[in-house]
Amino acid sequence: MFRKLIHAWPARQWLQHYTKQTLQADLMAAAIVTIMLIPQSLAYAMLAGLPPVTGLYASIFPLLAYALFGSSRTLAVGPVAVISLLSANAVGFAHHKTGIDIVTLSMSLAMISGLFMLTMGTLKLGFIANLLGRPVVVGFITAAGILIALGQLQHILGIHVSSHNLLQVIDTLSSNMASTHWQTTVIGMTSVLFLWWARQPLTRILKGYMSPYAASRISKLAPILAVVLSILVVGHWQLDTSGVKVVGNIPAGLPSLHWPELSLSLIKTLLPSALMISLIGYVESISVAQTLANKRRQQIKPDHELLGLGAANVASAMSGGFSVTGGFSRSVVNFDAGAATPMAGVLTAVGIALASLFLTPYLALLPKAVLGATIFVAVLTLIEPREFSFTWKYSMHDFMAMIITVAMVLLVGVEAGVIAGVIATISLLLWRTSRPHYAIVGPIPGTEHFRNIKRHEVEQCDRVVALRIDESLFFGNVRYLDNQINEIIATNENCLEHLILMASGINHVDSTALETLLDFNRRLKEKGIQMHMSEVKGPVLDRLERVHFCEQLTGNIYLSQHQAWQALVLDNNTCPSLSGY
Amino acid sequence: MFRKLIHAWPARQWLQHYTKQTLQADLMAAAIVTIMLIPQSLAYAMLAGLPPVTGLYASIFPLLAYALFGSSRTLAVGPVAVISLLSANAVGFAHHKTGIDIVTLSMSLAMISGLFMLTMGTLKLGFIANLLGRPVVVGFITAAGILIALGQLQHILGIHVSSHNLLQVIDTLSSNMASTHWQTTVIGMTSVLFLWWARQPLTRILKGYMSPYAASRISKLAPILAVVLSILVVGHWQLDTSGVKVVGNIPAGLPSLHWPELSLSLIKTLLPSALMISLIGYVESISVAQTLANKRRQQIKPDHELLGLGAANVASAMSGGFSVTGGFSRSVVNFDAGAATPMAGVLTAVGIALASLFLTPYLALLPKAVLGATIFVAVLTLIEPREFSFTWKYSMHDFMAMIITVAMVLLVGVEAGVIAGVIATISLLLWRTSRPHYAIVGPIPGTEHFRNIKRHEVEQCDRVVALRIDESLFFGNVRYLDNQINEIIATNENCLEHLILMASGINHVDSTALETLLDFNRRLKEKGIQMHMSEVKGPVLDRLERVHFCEQLTGNIYLSQHQAWQALVLDNNTCPSLSGY
Repeated sequence: MFRKLIHAWPARQWLQHYTKQTLQADLMAAAIVTIMLIPQSLAYAMLAGLPPVTGLYASIFPLLAYALFGSSRTLAVGPVAVISLLSANAVGFAHHKTGIDIVTLSMSLAMISGLFMLTMGTLKLGFIANLLGRPVVVGFITAAGILIALGQLQHILGIHVSSHNLLQVIDTLSSNMASTHWQTTVIGMTSVLFLWWARQPLTRILKGYMSPYAASRISKLAPILAVVLSILVVGHWQLDTSGVKVVGNIPAGLPSLHWPELSLSLIKTLLPSALMISLIGYVESISVAQTLANKRRQQIKPDHELLGLGAANVASAMSGGFSVTGGFSRSVVNFDAGAATPMAGVLTAVGIALASLFLTPYLALLPKAVLGATIFVAVLTLIEPREFSFTWKYSMHDFMAMIITVAMVLLVGVEAGVIAGVIATISLLLWRTSRPHYAIVGPIPGTEHFRNIKRHEVEQCDRVVALRIDESLFFGNVRYLDNQINEIIATNENCLEHLILMASGINHVDSTALETLLDFNRRLKEKGIQMHMSEVKGPVLDRLERVHFCEQLTGNIYLSQHQAWQALVLDNNTCPSLSGY
Repeated sequence: MFRKLIHAWPARQWLQHYTKQTLQADLMAAAIVTIMLIPQSLAYAMLAGLPPVTGLYASIFPLLAYALFGSSRTLAVGPVAVISLLSANAVGFAHHKTGIDIVTLSMSLAMISGLFMLTMGTLKLGFIANLLGRPVVVGFITAAGILIALGQLQHILGIHVSSHNLLQVIDTLSSNMASTHWQTTVIGMTSVLFLWWARQPLTRILKGYMSPYAASRISKLAPILAVVLSILVVGHWQLDTSGVKVVGNIPAGLPSLHWPELSLSLIKTLLPSALMISLIGYVESISVAQTLANKRRQQIKPDHELLGLGAANVASAMSGGFSVTGGFSRSVVNFDAGAATPMAGVLTAVGIALASLFLTPYLALLPKAVLGATIFVAVLTLIEPREFSFTWKYSMHDFMAMIITVAMVLLVGVEAGVIAGVIATISLLLWRTSRPHYAIVGPIPGTEHFRNIKRHEVEQCDRVVALRIDESLFFGNVRYLDNQINEIIATNENCLEHLILMASGINHVDSTALETLLDFNRRLKEKGIQMHMSEVKGPVLDRLERVHFCEQLTGNIYLSQHQAWQALVLDNNTCPSLSGY
């Protein structure tokens, strides 16, 4: 397996064709992403409840690790908002329980989820992430975005706000509102307004003077401009001495590599959160990777993505960082800026390493309010009302799952929300498949097509009932179907001679359903009714033959419903009024 | 709703047409079931860890309650082996925790599960029981049967055997084997051999002399004969004074009615077990009821069954009994003996009431070894190896779920087994649907039928690919399918002009899948490929139209795959080598 992995190693492919032009493109993209990443990495470290420097650390080695093992060419890995919030919650809980410091716990958490992702990738178990359907992901990200945004009011207003759930936010916000720190609030609110304005209106204005490409490029510089300006303002008026909270001294230098604490009892405490962070991080990341890859007709290999993200998290844990994944906004910027290969990620890592070595002294006076504003504006884009109205229109079930997720995240907490969402999706799936659609069908005159007698004008014969079941037969729905078919037979019992099960919608028959089918066949036999099947799919038929189903069936299995009708109705002249065609 | 319930009250229907003949049939059946039920009710009370008299109590009012509300004409309600074991386990646990006595706890447990069933029935939530697929039910009943049988060695050999799980059974059995009580063992083993012989060989012998009907009737008297003989033996040699454990004095008289203890903390302790008992009891009962009803073309209403069983459990709880449900063997006997209406159940209750009033003094010397033997022989019939080999042949997934259930019941306990089984079934369901079968299809020359190009000789056109997906599209499989279709397109990219999704196997498209379809449509558009759909089912199309899917689709939606092929391949002469027919 190891040799196969080496052979399939994604980096081989792009390294073979690496040229000077590719390098130039990657350099350009890396420069832009680095500038964007410096304030973001500090901000997300703050969101994860950690010293700012850990954000820089989480943006060096993880990027190298992903470049080596990941399959996306343009994914920008590093700290992201939602995962930082999940990490903060998990680590806060573990800290209360074990007393171990937050930094160590965050590293251990990243290590556990990294190892879990590596295991999943090696065993090709990526499909587990499919459990998180769109309603759950959208609901979760929206609600987490709201919680994160509200939590940033802590930094923007300079008061204490607890952000574990909505009730706590409202509670602490209302009781601390009076103690708002005015200088902090001015800096924070100004930053929010400036960053918000820079996103859309500024870009629109700039487009009047330059190409859209340059306009969007320049507007991306707004956060770094806010950083520089706020440092100058704080330095000039010495606002840090009058209560404006600043980042403080960040140790200059590169992270050292060491294995994080990982005792068995610690693993037990952190495992549930680590699994959740892995799944959510993976789903978030692969959605972006897939979208970007499709635009350039590149391929994403889900299992390689797991290996790449797993390696990135292990690297983060070993170099003093915390949980990372592929972020949406930075990846899009990376892509738009022309990143051609994962070398752009390597160069970004170099950029952040240089910043860690030489820029940190200048960041000491950076007010936390600006970082809070950066996060606030960034996560507001995660909230997409259109998704809700779309789902409302399309599927009430999915909308319910979405709302349950949102409500649970807001009212109880992020982890409870995801679990409730997954349970809701699976329950609704079972409920829906437990009452499948079925239809009595007849031929559309003059064709070989059989359609629902309630929707189309078709021919009918009261001695032959053809029933199409539009769902796989499985433990969840056989009892319901058994009842329904019994009723259909009861209403036609006097003259019914043949029942044809049209199986074009049956993709699988599990053993519970098979027993019911056999039982049903026996009961029909006692009533003198033959049971036939038509349009049975290959894999279903293969399986039925293993237990000699066809020999026990009182009737025949026909390749098509038309052939069944031909044999049972037309050839026998069973219903003389029908002539066929 | 109440008025509707009254109108649909099942007892109305059979009471209207009650005749003398029906009464005679019911009387006959009731007499036979009563004789069978006396030793069984005492034995199952013992299995539930309760005084024997509670078994009689659980066989009077519950039968009346079911007769009033249940929908089956022939179901025999009362104590059954598996439910008694579950009750013993749940109550044993709660007794350790709360210190309340076992009898009170058993009544409270029956009350909670009765109220739960009534609620489910009123809200028409019976479908929840569908969660228990056949692999779980068969696995559970087999493993519980093994545990119960081994546990009876306690009474048959006169030693202490713990029966919570297999390890405990083996452990206590091996350490106590030396202290086997020989008189008890003789009585116990003789009873087992006699009862076993009476089930099959005796019936076969008797059939030589009389009608099969009379033969099977007489063999049913074996347990009561064992009871009478063993009482005479114990009485004659005064074996109770030399260590043979006997039932002891049973208070004569009828149970008094009162509301059982039901504090909030007790409800909290017992609720999980009560839910499980309700679901398993319901599934066991409705399977029998359905089988018997089908034989006489009667209808079972699942929600009325819940009401009937719920009422029976409430009645049991209020009259000093424990959890009850519809039992398999007694119901079959009732049916075979000619029971025509639930009046047979009422008369059985009268029979047991008479036994409680007048027979109890004679039962004092009944050895427990005989009751143990009754249970031992009864539960061995629950073990059906054929079910295992059948499932092994038919579906490896279902077999795995079965084995997981059996292993967990035997090694951990009955409740853990059921939970593990349900989780396994759902996981395997998701796994299976996450990698659905799909096929590129083409027309069978000279017909309108489209079949898998790998299984049939069909026509193909490299500019038009028709893809049939044999599964509903939902959050669990869209990512996999997206990848697969991308690969198919990548291999045909040079000349591909049209992709037709043949949707005959797609019964539902959830919102996650819809987003993917729309995204896919956009991506194909960029590559200059049109996306079409064919054979979209009515309900699916209705839903897609809610969000104007058809307008966004680059291609068309065709009623049939044949029409799509006609329009895209034949009419345009897209593949000149194909002529159509």
